[in-house]
Amino acid sequence: MSARLYVCTTCRAGETVEDGRPVPGARLYAALAEATLPEGVDLVPVECLSACSNGCAVALSQTGSWSYIYGRLGESDASDILAGAGAYAATRDGIVPWRERVAIFRKQSLARIPPLES
Amino acid sequence: MSARLYVCTTCRAGETVEDGRPVPGARLYAALAEATLPEGVDLVPVECLSACSNGCAVALSQTGSWSYIYGRLGESDASDILAGAGAYAATRDGIVPWRERVAIFRKQSLARIPPLES
Repeated sequence: MSARLYVCTTCRAGETVEDGRPVPGARLYAALAEATLPEGVDLVPVECLSACSNGCAVALSQTGSWSYIYGRLGESDASDILAGAGAYAATRDGIVPWRERVAIFRKQSLARIPPLES
Repeated sequence: MSARLYVCTTCRAGETVEDGRPVPGARLYAALAEATLPEGVDLVPVECLSACSNGCAVALSQTGSWSYIYGRLGESDASDILAGAGAYAATRDGIVPWRERVAIFRKQSLARIPPLES
């Protein structure tokens, strides 16, 4: 099974957004959806990742691996998020060696959860 | 399979701890381990949940369910954490109705991640 890159599409990230305009989470999702996804990564929109005070947020999970959540992200991080997701998908356990992690994943982790299978 | 209640046992929660004294995460784990666990809940120590700036942290996950992470917790929250874990374990999808959630789970969510199986 592929890794899943979840993106909170309802996140306002503290911004005041005019009616009818896309919120920051929707704009981040759109930026990711327009890009070429790394091998083994599925992009999945989610209505809320409950990380509202640290949005925009994305999460990564795959069978048998640690899951990770990252926050304080925006559209300009799309290419780094995809690079990080590709590195994650290439692991067996979800743990990308520290030095190989993209900077936003080193610095903006909100939490991680062990795999259920371990 | 039971729900798993993960507890970060290495968390310092911003406290300065004397050498040889248990850190706040270890004390929270000890408080939970001494209590009677709710039906269907396994307590699992973890070395780091990467929620260091919002410790102490615990996470809940079970097969087919949303996973949740909560932060800013301490020993005095042990009984509420267990009550919340029991309510979580009794669901099929991990989603406890809002009004039935313990207050610390309503207010101190760090993030949630969808089930891989959905």
